[in-house]
Amino acid sequence: MKYISILGSTGSVGTQTLEVVRENPDIQVVALAAGSNISLLEAQIREFKPLLAAVYEEEKAKELALKVKDTAVVVMSGMEGLIACSTDIHTNIVVTALVGMIGIVPTIEAIKAGKDIALANKETLVTAGHIIMPLAKERQVRILPVDSEHSAIFQALNGEEKNEIERIILTASGGPFRGKKREDLKKIQVEDALKHPNWSMGRKITIDSSTMVNKGLEVMEARWLFDVDLEKIQVVIQPQSIIHSAVEYTDGSIMAQMGMPDMKLPIQYALYYPDRRYLKGERINFFKLGRLDFFEPDYETFEGLKLAFEAAKRGGSMPTVYNAANEYAVAKFLNREISYLEITELIEKAMEAHRFRENPSVSEILETEKETREFLDGKLKR
Amino acid sequence: MKYISILGSTGSVGTQTLEVVRENPDIQVVALAAGSNISLLEAQIREFKPLLAAVYEEEKAKELALKVKDTAVVVMSGMEGLIACSTDIHTNIVVTALVGMIGIVPTIEAIKAGKDIALANKETLVTAGHIIMPLAKERQVRILPVDSEHSAIFQALNGEEKNEIERIILTASGGPFRGKKREDLKKIQVEDALKHPNWSMGRKITIDSSTMVNKGLEVMEARWLFDVDLEKIQVVIQPQSIIHSAVEYTDGSIMAQMGMPDMKLPIQYALYYPDRRYLKGERINFFKLGRLDFFEPDYETFEGLKLAFEAAKRGGSMPTVYNAANEYAVAKFLNREISYLEITELIEKAMEAHRFRENPSVSEILETEKETREFLDGKLKR
Repeated sequence: MKYISILGSTGSVGTQTLEVVRENPDIQVVALAAGSNISLLEAQIREFKPLLAAVYEEEKAKELALKVKDTAVVVMSGMEGLIACSTDIHTNIVVTALVGMIGIVPTIEAIKAGKDIALANKETLVTAGHIIMPLAKERQVRILPVDSEHSAIFQALNGEEKNEIERIILTASGGPFRGKKREDLKKIQVEDALKHPNWSMGRKITIDSSTMVNKGLEVMEARWLFDVDLEKIQVVIQPQSIIHSAVEYTDGSIMAQMGMPDMKLPIQYALYYPDRRYLKGERINFFKLGRLDFFEPDYETFEGLKLAFEAAKRGGSMPTVYNAANEYAVAKFLNREISYLEITELIEKAMEAHRFRENPSVSEILETEKETREFLDGKLKR
Repeated sequence: MKYISILGSTGSVGTQTLEVVRENPDIQVVALAAGSNISLLEAQIREFKPLLAAVYEEEKAKELALKVKDTAVVVMSGMEGLIACSTDIHTNIVVTALVGMIGIVPTIEAIKAGKDIALANKETLVTAGHIIMPLAKERQVRILPVDSEHSAIFQALNGEEKNEIERIILTASGGPFRGKKREDLKKIQVEDALKHPNWSMGRKITIDSSTMVNKGLEVMEARWLFDVDLEKIQVVIQPQSIIHSAVEYTDGSIMAQMGMPDMKLPIQYALYYPDRRYLKGERINFFKLGRLDFFEPDYETFEGLKLAFEAAKRGGSMPTVYNAANEYAVAKFLNREISYLEITELIEKAMEAHRFRENPSVSEILETEKETREFLDGKLKR
């Protein structure tokens, strides 16, 4: 039996994790945590019967508690609730599928409690990789990537020696605006940016995918997850999203992982690693597929990706600024308060203005986030 | 230190194996065996200083012995020489790079003597897989594929469970006549068939590649090497020869091995498995590459591939007939005695006429080969 807690159970990765659970009777859900979608969370509680549920918003938590008082579930709220879910004594794997920097502290607490982490929260490694990875090593906890790209790299590394890596090939679909120039992106509306060609994901990550900031965050994550130099990570546009990523070894051999775009594959792989289980779904038909294309990323048009390499190279608190500024800007864009190109402009300005910290603690990371948001608030008000 | 014997050291795989040896000072060559090219073998003896050398043709062996009498090497001849090379007490890996069924007996003797086999001789598994694989298992000897396709599958299986295989994707370049119809192949000359688009190989295997008989033999080999049902092997045309083959697992994930077309990669991988070593050479540049294409094989035009599946399905002595008839026909074609399309016609006729043996012994396999050649001799004389 596997016992799991899911942080962010009502989001895209959370619901797909529960689809995997539904097909595998040997997984028991211990705890579910969500932000505010209590109607879906209630349905999940009734179906999967966790011991514990957490809702970040306190009012919503109270509301949920009333709704499910006929069940045995305990309902908690706030950061306390998230940590209770991630450290519950019955859990052995924590799926961290929260969006945003809110995932950092519960993840750290889970690692301290000896839980394996199925990591779908990008911000954790982007901002706190220098804290998380040594801690996981010290506590002998596994960080199992859930992102399709990192899962692909993880699969390509299976059975291989890390010191034999020559290059990590991180693939990107290129998003809905691949091939466009900066000029073309001026008039992009929210609806345009929410149309991803291959993947069905949450709104924030879909925008990030269109700006390639998402790929930038993945570069930073990959660096920590696989302990490789930034110079060894190459972003390759693979528009069909069939090659999910690859690793080149010192003999020139490249091991690539391919699959249909379906998040259930990396989720299930993380939960059962190193074993594989049957997974329902369409298989790759190479004859129907016909071809795979490869392009170099356009770093001028997709400046967010260029800025990511700069932030990663600088290290310290800079990735936090990059991420916090993006989070802030995307929310503003989704709220139609800023234009599409302003997303990366705000990231750039925030990075320029930032008072750099070399080796930030968790509280300094969170402080950096706050400073970044305040700086951008000031910028937009002027 | 690794101690190796190379059977077929003057051929394409043999010379490339010695290039790998040249770059790796921890490999010592114990024995070299060749068919008749004694001038190259003499140079190899002087460079790599084996204890033992064998030349299949007795007269040539005598000639060589005279040439190298200033060295410490012992020169032998015939099957006795091949077996002496493959079983020498100092050897721990035998590279079987002979062309043709002559490789079977020395390989069996090497396995009996507890040597790991770096297998480049297709005929061994095609005709005697039912003898070789159980014997290797019994003697706890490793069969390490050297063929780029089987090496790719072997690499894709590294760290994985065999019972989780859903499909083996055996790629093929399609050869120089890809896209042509049967009608177009009528007037093919030796020179046309010797032009392979991607790989530099020996003459016989280049012809086999153009008829796709080579892929047929690889299907038969894959079945034995990886112990999978024939139905699970799919041939996919990948004209750029970048994806060397792949394995699909039960979760729909495909692990593919890619590399530039360079035989030194699979040779070195076999010698150092499961480790990888640095290998000089060009790396894949995805931006230059631009695309990978996939096509379904044309089983009507490349009837040799269709016949291979039939022979493999029938099993027993039928793969031997398929292989022997092809060996015979290709020699006749290279000698301009028959036309290009007659190669597969002769295979088909030989298969039709064959007196089937269910579970042939080595002597029955060799007897089947002889019968097939005699049958075709008779056919051509009429």
